[in-house]
Amino acid sequence: MIPAGASVESMTHVPDINSPEEQTRYERGLAVLAAVDGGSAPAVMENLADIAPALAHHVVAFGFGDIYARPGLDPKQRQLVTLGILTALGGCEPQLEVHVRTSLNVGLTTTEIVEALTHAAGYCGFPKALNAIFVAKKVFAERGLLPVG
Amino acid sequence: MIPAGASVESMTHVPDINSPEEQTRYERGLAVLAAVDGGSAPAVMENLADIAPALAHHVVAFGFGDIYARPGLDPKQRQLVTLGILTALGGCEPQLEVHVRTSLNVGLTTTEIVEALTHAAGYCGFPKALNAIFVAKKVFAERGLLPVG
Amino acid sequence: MIPAGASVESMTHVPDINSPEEQTRYERGLAVLAAVDGGSAPAVMENLADIAPALAHHVVAFGFGDIYARPGLDPKQRQLVTLGILTALGGCEPQLEVHVRTSLNVGLTTTEIVEALTHAAGYCGFPKALNAIFVAKKVFAERGLLPVG
Amino acid sequence: MIPAGASVESMTHVPDINSPEEQTRYERGLAVLAAVDGGSAPAVMENLADIAPALAHHVVAFGFGDIYARPGLDPKQRQLVTLGILTALGGCEPQLEVHVRTSLNVGLTTTEIVEALTHAAGYCGFPKALNAIFVAKKVFAERGLLPVG
Amino acid sequence: MIPAGASVESMTHVPDINSPEEQTRYERGLAVLAAVDGGSAPAVMENLADIAPALAHHVVAFGFGDIYARPGLDPKQRQLVTLGILTALGGCEPQLEVHVRTSLNVGLTTTEIVEALTHAAGYCGFPKALNAIFVAKKVFAERGLLPVG
Amino acid sequence: MIPAGASVESMTHVPDINSPEEQTRYERGLAVLAAVDGGSAPAVMENLADIAPALAHHVVAFGFGDIYARPGLDPKQRQLVTLGILTALGGCEPQLEVHVRTSLNVGLTTTEIVEALTHAAGYCGFPKALNAIFVAKKVFAERGLLPVG
Repeated sequence: MIPAGASVESMTHVPDINSPEEQTRYERGLAVLAAVDGGSAPAVMENLADIAPALAHHVVAFGFGDIYARPGLDPKQRQLVTLGILTALGGCEPQLEVHVRTSLNVGLTTTEIVEALTHAAGYCGFPKALNAIFVAKKVFAERGLLPVG
Repeated sequence: MIPAGASVESMTHVPDINSPEEQTRYERGLAVLAAVDGGSAPAVMENLADIAPALAHHVVAFGFGDIYARPGLDPKQRQLVTLGILTALGGCEPQLEVHVRTSLNVGLTTTEIVEALTHAAGYCGFPKALNAIFVAKKVFAERGLLPVG
Repeated sequence: MIPAGASVESMTHVPDINSPEEQTRYERGLAVLAAVDGGSAPAVMENLADIAPALAHHVVAFGFGDIYARPGLDPKQRQLVTLGILTALGGCEPQLEVHVRTSLNVGLTTTEIVEALTHAAGYCGFPKALNAIFVAKKVFAERGLLPVG
Repeated sequence: MIPAGASVESMTHVPDINSPEEQTRYERGLAVLAAVDGGSAPAVMENLADIAPALAHHVVAFGFGDIYARPGLDPKQRQLVTLGILTALGGCEPQLEVHVRTSLNVGLTTTEIVEALTHAAGYCGFPKALNAIFVAKKVFAERGLLPVG
Repeated sequence: MIPAGASVESMTHVPDINSPEEQTRYERGLAVLAAVDGGSAPAVMENLADIAPALAHHVVAFGFGDIYARPGLDPKQRQLVTLGILTALGGCEPQLEVHVRTSLNVGLTTTEIVEALTHAAGYCGFPKALNAIFVAKKVFAERGLLPVG
Repeated sequence: MIPAGASVESMTHVPDINSPEEQTRYERGLAVLAAVDGGSAPAVMENLADIAPALAHHVVAFGFGDIYARPGLDPKQRQLVTLGILTALGGCEPQLEVHVRTSLNVGLTTTEIVEALTHAAGYCGFPKALNAIFVAKKVFAERGLLPVG
């Protein structure tokens, strides 16, 4: 049992995110991110540099290096799961915007994206589905992909 | 503007769910449901018969007949979106159980289902991912699909 | 069981939203919407025309034609339920704004709306209740309905 | 500014929940609760006695004495808002059960309750609406109120 | 049992929020709020004056006077719980902004706040943690507290 | 850009969770978990062995090894954040049970835990606070810690 007030750190070694082993993990995640994201995520990550560099590190090293790159689902399948989650959570429009872009980058069509968000209406209601579709519309407009179908 | 206290019904015709047109919609949804569900949903629907037959009707007629059967996404893709939504919502374990069964029925492998729920951990946190994985485990055990991989 | 990769569509007939039967359903929903909404929803629906016309169709045909117009609750009662749901969900401020307008249109007083959102504080906490009340304030201000009471 | 580590308590007087003024507030809430609840809530409150008597006190004194008893909405209206909130939150089945009973006690009919939960499907999705309807079914069954309609 | 349509008010006395006893409760809460908030909350409360003065009253009288000032947790501990709740709820960025300021006011360091939000990523996912960290960044920037660490 | 249908894996190396480097990360997390958990988590992790060993690995390696062990917050502070998050999410009672035990293990008193959950009522409502307090009551009862205070 740890003494009250003590840091768990005192009993273990937490590797610095700048250590060689963590930099290797980070680079691995960054390669995945670059492959699927097409360039918008780095700006988000840079925005974290002066406040939460460890959070930025773990988004990349864990989220993309450890999880996203795993076999078992291809990127299009992962994006369908992610679109479902972000639509259901609500209030995650900035992340949904990034992931609509990523969905296009990995090969989901605008029709598939719209269909996923329309499908969501039955499971989490029209309001959240509408919020998500208007995020998709913004991204599609930027890329000259409107009208859909 | 409608007078206070008046039902909107007074101004429009709401078709009875037993009308021929609604029965046609219902039959269409039931065919989809039978194709993807493999038999567990009807029991849920029957459970609604003595309390909310209209809700049961619309789950089938709208949810499956109008939405699920649409082109644009195949059933495996729809299930990936649905697994993401139900994991993120939380507290929907009964529906998740139905949809893990449906996911297997439409051809998602146990590995793909597990991978989708593992992927979810990064987007809605470990607790909800763990709740979902234990629902999947129950279904997989019933079908003799453990261990996975 | 459907073959992997196949669309459920291949086994069933999904009516086009432009078919006569679906147009009838849509017109019915539109009549309800016009009666309760007072004119703000059509703009939202038009915004969907170039990206998700089917979602717009079903919001109207299902949400208003099939559900809202049902007997059992009058529009004022439906709006109280809706205000409760949208406040609790969070992140649905655009829809809440539409529904505060609708609530006024169907005859809820500003006092009743404020009281519903104040009541919500005990059930979903002050932060969500405050978010909702500031949406209501915006609508009331537009209509010259401040101060309340 | 308060010194780090200091309790705000040091700067103010927090009335004991057993003080005469707080007992007066509590009694007022208890009278409201008794009028609307029909007897199930006290058991919940007693269950809190050995762990969180202050929480029990405030549920009664604030939730019922300060909020529920306010003018502006009658109890049936308050219950419609509450049913909407608890359905949307999810995971609050024990509280929803109490509030379905309360809804019946204050005069909502089984049809109105079912209609409210059916209405909810469009705003927070079928899964949460189904969870809520099965809670209502349990309460209706206990009271011999099935089938509905 | 209360008659349908009757207000519970008819059976009980709801004290006016301007009554001496309620003003005493309000003043108590205001003293707590002033001690921990450092001045931003009053503007929010004033914003409620012309629409929901009772909600503003209860935020102060109940939220701060009855709950926040209780012994058992010091303000820094209360803020850690609050940061966790607001991050998890999502969509409560305005309240989170107030509570990041309050957290600094009661003595949490920028490092502790960032660490709490980084910790949250594992429990409610990266998207909500990122939303929260960007709220913190805005507050830290206003106070000249960047870079952190 | 990755070809449609391709796994990101094809472009990068995902370390097997049984690799030496991942086992080192896992052992580090396990040491933290053992220090704070007091023995209940391993059973949860074992339950994942035949379905999602990678998820179990990352809960330990990332959640405890990378995040929990970080300096900046001591374990009692981390538990306060976690209690807030799990109470607000709802539907995470199994995880909340684990974390009430962990909270006691790292030195939070029963009074502090109860106070955190009572505090939560104002921010996410009474229903979720009540759900959480009854989880705490179960754990306290098992450990002979009732009545509190």
